[in-house]
Amino acid sequence: MSDRIARLSKSLEEPLLVTNPVNVRYLVGFESSNAAILVEPERVRLFTDFRYIEAARATVEGVEVVQTKRDLIGWLAAELTGRVGFEAAVLPYALYEQLAGGRVELVPRTGLVERLRAVKDGTELDALRRACAITDRMFERLATEVRFVGRSELDVSWDIARLFHEEGAEDLAFVSIVGSGPTGSQPHARAGTRAIGPGELVVIDTGCRVDGYVSDYTRTFATGALDGEMREAYGVVLAAQQAGLDAIRAGASGADVDAVARRVIDDSPFAGTFGHGLGHGLGLDVHESPRLSPESGDTLVPGNVVTVEPGVYVGGRFGVRTEDDVLVTEDGLENLSGFRKDLVVVS
Amino acid sequence: MSDRIARLSKSLEEPLLVTNPVNVRYLVGFESSNAAILVEPERVRLFTDFRYIEAARATVEGVEVVQTKRDLIGWLAAELTGRVGFEAAVLPYALYEQLAGGRVELVPRTGLVERLRAVKDGTELDALRRACAITDRMFERLATEVRFVGRSELDVSWDIARLFHEEGAEDLAFVSIVGSGPTGSQPHARAGTRAIGPGELVVIDTGCRVDGYVSDYTRTFATGALDGEMREAYGVVLAAQQAGLDAIRAGASGADVDAVARRVIDDSPFAGTFGHGLGHGLGLDVHESPRLSPESGDTLVPGNVVTVEPGVYVGGRFGVRTEDDVLVTEDGLENLSGFRKDLVVVS
Repeated sequence: MSDRIARLSKSLEEPLLVTNPVNVRYLVGFESSNAAILVEPERVRLFTDFRYIEAARATVEGVEVVQTKRDLIGWLAAELTGRVGFEAAVLPYALYEQLAGGRVELVPRTGLVERLRAVKDGTELDALRRACAITDRMFERLATEVRFVGRSELDVSWDIARLFHEEGAEDLAFVSIVGSGPTGSQPHARAGTRAIGPGELVVIDTGCRVDGYVSDYTRTFATGALDGEMREAYGVVLAAQQAGLDAIRAGASGADVDAVARRVIDDSPFAGTFGHGLGHGLGLDVHESPRLSPESGDTLVPGNVVTVEPGVYVGGRFGVRTEDDVLVTEDGLENLSGFRKDLVVVS
Repeated sequence: MSDRIARLSKSLEEPLLVTNPVNVRYLVGFESSNAAILVEPERVRLFTDFRYIEAARATVEGVEVVQTKRDLIGWLAAELTGRVGFEAAVLPYALYEQLAGGRVELVPRTGLVERLRAVKDGTELDALRRACAITDRMFERLATEVRFVGRSELDVSWDIARLFHEEGAEDLAFVSIVGSGPTGSQPHARAGTRAIGPGELVVIDTGCRVDGYVSDYTRTFATGALDGEMREAYGVVLAAQQAGLDAIRAGASGADVDAVARRVIDDSPFAGTFGHGLGHGLGLDVHESPRLSPESGDTLVPGNVVTVEPGVYVGGRFGVRTEDDVLVTEDGLENLSGFRKDLVVVS
């Protein structure tokens, strides 16, 4: 039994059926669109169909591999008995109903594997460090080699993909955000056909994937001289981020860290414009536990890896956001993001 | 009320709560990770939170836009009453439970919007045609400009992404499959670090996205002269595909079309090696209704767009697959895929 499964096992009140593909990958290192793991006190089984069975047998160690029909849930419904927990935040209702039609007594559970995933082990940290090192190099080249003014946000977004590829990333972590001028004031806008102008702020939120693990950075570049309000916003965001970084350590609450950074913005002329949480966990998923936000109930522990990403958004004019990826330690943090945070002017 | 919503409305026995983001996009043209539509006989409401509300109001016509809390399902649980259908194949159990905790009487429903999406209208066909035209040009350039022998599958996969971008695709439809030599015998292998050798078959399964709609082609290229078994397999797959194409027309069953193509392979020395279905619908999703497979219960109607993709897989040695995207018409089909299907030799 792997260390991860052993830790999971200890937290279970009844056997757990794991169906979230990311959780399956985390527990046994096997990727498939049709697989499940049943973790029992003395037995762990991986279920998958004939399409994936050879790959499963070749990949997975210390776990029984069982071939099912392609209708995996139907097969399990006929097979399982007794009390079994299931991942209620992921399993669609129709599949729940199919399972419940069998002889099993189902118990909805949430967050059991996600809680383990929030604390990274050495292998995971190594992948995250490599993803961040590639992202540092990508941003270095983006700042120096790529033309912004007169080109579209989508053109720059493509250059980001190309640079990540050239620097050895296996993939983008998510669709890059390139928000120039007024587009940058919408935190969720991606990249469009808008031509980037001179004297604008350009919010660039991007990341890559290495061995399954992701980076997630934001930097805001200037295309030439900025007006006073933009320069002030840039400074406020940087100060808010530094306050957030300074508040991070094991034992700090996600809500408190958020509040410390948020106060810097709310004590500035940009009060009330920071309309999202300060950060989120990072790993196999781009958004995972723990959360840094006003609503977070999480307390940081050593081994958490989180983003710290305050922003200021001035509707219809511009946005500024700066985002690092950091490892929580006993008495502070290690910042995995090395790329500079002073205002970078691109051409 | 849009034509799509009017058609959906006619098929409903009770109001339907649409939560699948692809179905939301299809019905009202609005993309969001946190939105739902309630379709009632005389009223259609789109629910979303403050992050998306401006975009929703700017995008959506003829539908009431209602701002909810970020906890959309919790908000709906407090708001909805009476009998309401929900999309049981998509809604996670935990959200079902949250909704069911309110005053609403929930009815699980599946496939209601998906059934409409299976028949493409003019706007959708236009996007699909453009995606296919770009894919034709990408394959032309891949066959003539790109070096295969001595480079890795991942290198070729990157060239595909680059060519799609240069030809005007907004994105890849899915992670490209580049399966050389023995890798090609695993229908689900993607692309790896294996160096492509001379005299091999290389299965290339890829597609792009245009205005949300996807293409999905497969061609199998040769890197120089092939042995007799490979050449024979190539011919058998081509003949099987032609038999499948010839069987397609409105009124044909998905199981029969599959059987016609499968018989060609099963009457050859490669009997039993075609281990997947013949095809699937194509649209906003890469896999949608109708299906062409032994288990399909679907009957083709005019306006369906499906893939036709037989394959032969010789374990540990090679694979061959050829895949076109076709529009089903009253008395046959229109093939949207123009790229040549005779054996292309690349260097």
